[in-house]
Amino acid sequence: MALGAATAGKLDDRVSRALTALLGDRMTTAQAVREHHGSGEDYFKPVPPDAVCFVRSTEEVAEIVKICAAHKVPIIPFGTGTSLEGHVTAPYGGVCIDLSQMADVLEVNGEDLDCRVQAGVRRKQINEYLRDTGLFFPIDPGADASLGGMAATRASGTNAVRYGTMRENVLGLTMVLADGRVIRTGGRARKSAAGYDLTRLFVGSEGTLGIITEVQLRLYGIPEKMASAVCQYPSLEDAVNTVILTIQAGVPVARIELLNDVQMGACIDYSKLEGYEAKTTLFYEFHGSEAAVAEQADTVKAISDEHGGSAFQWTARTEDRNKLWQARHDAYYSALALEPGKRAMASDVCVPISRLAETISGAAADVEAAGFRAPILGHVGDGNFHLVFLIDPDDKDEAARAHGANELIVQRALANGGTCTGEHGIGAGKMEFLVAEHGEAVSVMRQLKQTLDPDNIMNPGKMLRP
Amino acid sequence: MALGAATAGKLDDRVSRALTALLGDRMTTAQAVREHHGSGEDYFKPVPPDAVCFVRSTEEVAEIVKICAAHKVPIIPFGTGTSLEGHVTAPYGGVCIDLSQMADVLEVNGEDLDCRVQAGVRRKQINEYLRDTGLFFPIDPGADASLGGMAATRASGTNAVRYGTMRENVLGLTMVLADGRVIRTGGRARKSAAGYDLTRLFVGSEGTLGIITEVQLRLYGIPEKMASAVCQYPSLEDAVNTVILTIQAGVPVARIELLNDVQMGACIDYSKLEGYEAKTTLFYEFHGSEAAVAEQADTVKAISDEHGGSAFQWTARTEDRNKLWQARHDAYYSALALEPGKRAMASDVCVPISRLAETISGAAADVEAAGFRAPILGHVGDGNFHLVFLIDPDDKDEAARAHGANELIVQRALANGGTCTGEHGIGAGKMEFLVAEHGEAVSVMRQLKQTLDPDNIMNPGKMLRP
Repeated sequence: MALGAATAGKLDDRVSRALTALLGDRMTTAQAVREHHGSGEDYFKPVPPDAVCFVRSTEEVAEIVKICAAHKVPIIPFGTGTSLEGHVTAPYGGVCIDLSQMADVLEVNGEDLDCRVQAGVRRKQINEYLRDTGLFFPIDPGADASLGGMAATRASGTNAVRYGTMRENVLGLTMVLADGRVIRTGGRARKSAAGYDLTRLFVGSEGTLGIITEVQLRLYGIPEKMASAVCQYPSLEDAVNTVILTIQAGVPVARIELLNDVQMGACIDYSKLEGYEAKTTLFYEFHGSEAAVAEQADTVKAISDEHGGSAFQWTARTEDRNKLWQARHDAYYSALALEPGKRAMASDVCVPISRLAETISGAAADVEAAGFRAPILGHVGDGNFHLVFLIDPDDKDEAARAHGANELIVQRALANGGTCTGEHGIGAGKMEFLVAEHGEAVSVMRQLKQTLDPDNIMNPGKMLRP
Repeated sequence: MALGAATAGKLDDRVSRALTALLGDRMTTAQAVREHHGSGEDYFKPVPPDAVCFVRSTEEVAEIVKICAAHKVPIIPFGTGTSLEGHVTAPYGGVCIDLSQMADVLEVNGEDLDCRVQAGVRRKQINEYLRDTGLFFPIDPGADASLGGMAATRASGTNAVRYGTMRENVLGLTMVLADGRVIRTGGRARKSAAGYDLTRLFVGSEGTLGIITEVQLRLYGIPEKMASAVCQYPSLEDAVNTVILTIQAGVPVARIELLNDVQMGACIDYSKLEGYEAKTTLFYEFHGSEAAVAEQADTVKAISDEHGGSAFQWTARTEDRNKLWQARHDAYYSALALEPGKRAMASDVCVPISRLAETISGAAADVEAAGFRAPILGHVGDGNFHLVFLIDPDDKDEAARAHGANELIVQRALANGGTCTGEHGIGAGKMEFLVAEHGEAVSVMRQLKQTLDPDNIMNPGKMLRP
């Protein structure tokens, strides 16, 4: 089934006038604003939308959608622009809806460990807001992304190994659909068997089925104790095997992050980390009571010692922990700093843990064969890792070599029972891989898209090829 | 939008002949078999299908669906017949597909903590199969249900408070859709951001979007220590407040189950439990290392003591634990035994934990006002509880009083931010409540149903009113 063709080109005057009447100067066609909204933090060439609308309410979003729907004008939702697969490019033109001004925390139900936020609230903002409550929201993709964007891309990050991803931590959504209908999905109960799980359908739908305007989130009590440790290993295999045995032993680590030698060297330089070598490294974090943290750490240290791990370098003070994890979060930028002027294409495969060692080793070999010096970093407790290709998008040969190597990496991950994307999403970059991974099931995805967005106005050109 | 009308009445001869050609004597119209397949363990009047097909493969299911689709004959999937909301009744006639002979464990990936089973594998069967591996599948709805049926109804049960529900524990599915297409959803990776989450869409779809023929499941290592305790309380409020504080303290209890005085009395009689009184009771279970179990138990005991709880009666021996939990699982049957000859209508609301005390107290008052002596039991760690109305379905006044009280209970749960069903599903019994709970979102559910099952042949008359 072909999805309806999206309209391209400059904005229809009637649409432009209607949006201005609705939003005043919060609707703009200024070139600098459009350009800022035409790309994420990825290697895709920026493709600006025809206009940008800064919204302040679900009702405004619904009105914009109705105006656009009447004229079949594409709509691209925008949170913070930190996505990594061309999600915010506007290949068919249209209107970008910027939700960053919808940044209110609507309610915190401390006793029930949940909260409701507008989609533009950022991850760091919600945790600052919660600071005095003893609660936190754990999902942490590195970038200070918006919670709406994180829900839309089914984001996760460093501590998904313990706390899950946005899939597990979104309790409900307010959605504006392609015809302007507003619905609320899910609820505050911890479980429900009432009807189709629309929340999970929309989490990870990348703006292609509707626009998320509010998110109900699970929260967690801040653990009594949080302790981080760094451990360095003689080889990639030693580190990965430590991870595999740790997970198989059922240790509830909060974070277990791999950095290969190239990536660790980049982090040391970029984040001024002292006392470490440019060797394969695992960053650990343990959450729990004093006793539980000690017990977990003892188990992991025993496994690590068997694989030649160095002594654990502990950072229990909050500021030291923050510095360490900021360095981890800045790993992407540190990789970019290795070759200034280049852009990063990040692979994002995720495999069953037993296949992690061979998948990473194979990927490293592919990258080397393609002539790249690739930093590897990963949320390896989940079986998820990233290989960052530094490319000049204008250098066709270099880009082709990177894409070729990336394809080999994805094929190996799929052959090993894995997925082409653990957390970045399909976007404009992995549509072929989606078909390779899900086969006939993609025809069902296309049916759902066709039903909920018959004119293909919701973020067209992403996830499903038109 | 009206869903397509389903065909009623006796089976078309052409369908009958085609099914017999496919299945031989595994297709039957024998009255006793049809009657056995016309009801679950609930209060609904049995409505037998026109024929029953015992299938052995996904391919057979697909062939049956194609035959039925060509003649618009309804299809009702059947696992073990333990559902509680009329899910397996055949109000429009049609063909029941009995999956109980699809009972093979297809693969166990011990290192990755997952397995793949045919839909007819039962919960106890998979755990017996896994016994020597050190792994187990925790989801436990009480009944020895099939895993396909559990996925179809988004089942959970006693230890969802720690391990989640079928929503969190199904990694992927093989589905036969209404046009006979076979798709595989999900995968073995622990997380994925690849496309729409079809797995979660089909988990809980109650056979209305397709038939689940295989399930990929998460597994867990059997904890080093598992210990159960029973504690009795002066009042319902004391027990519920103990639960609330335990959950809010973040104690990872594996089970925390409430039985009110009526239910506890019924269990003592039915299961020959010794040493307990017919008082409000909590059954606890703790999983973890020796130290973790001790730490959890200490925290909970301190909370319990503040609420007048009795001394904990520990059962650490496996056989004692099993007896205790078998009694809990048999609670439903023990309630039925209170008034022999009657059938049980179980309410299944689930609310945010802070609202649990008032929701349960209000429900108890509603029930009393309606003239029933109702056992209450619940997976209260999730905010989920059941009230069992014992009714004679032929006694119209009694049934009306029970339905009236149940409606009040649901309204109160919804007003408290809860759901009309935590784990039993909508089926034929809660279609109005689904609309009350989800409002406009139900129109989206109807669109999805219409798209994937345009002739409304998949379990018609369930979840969405035709």
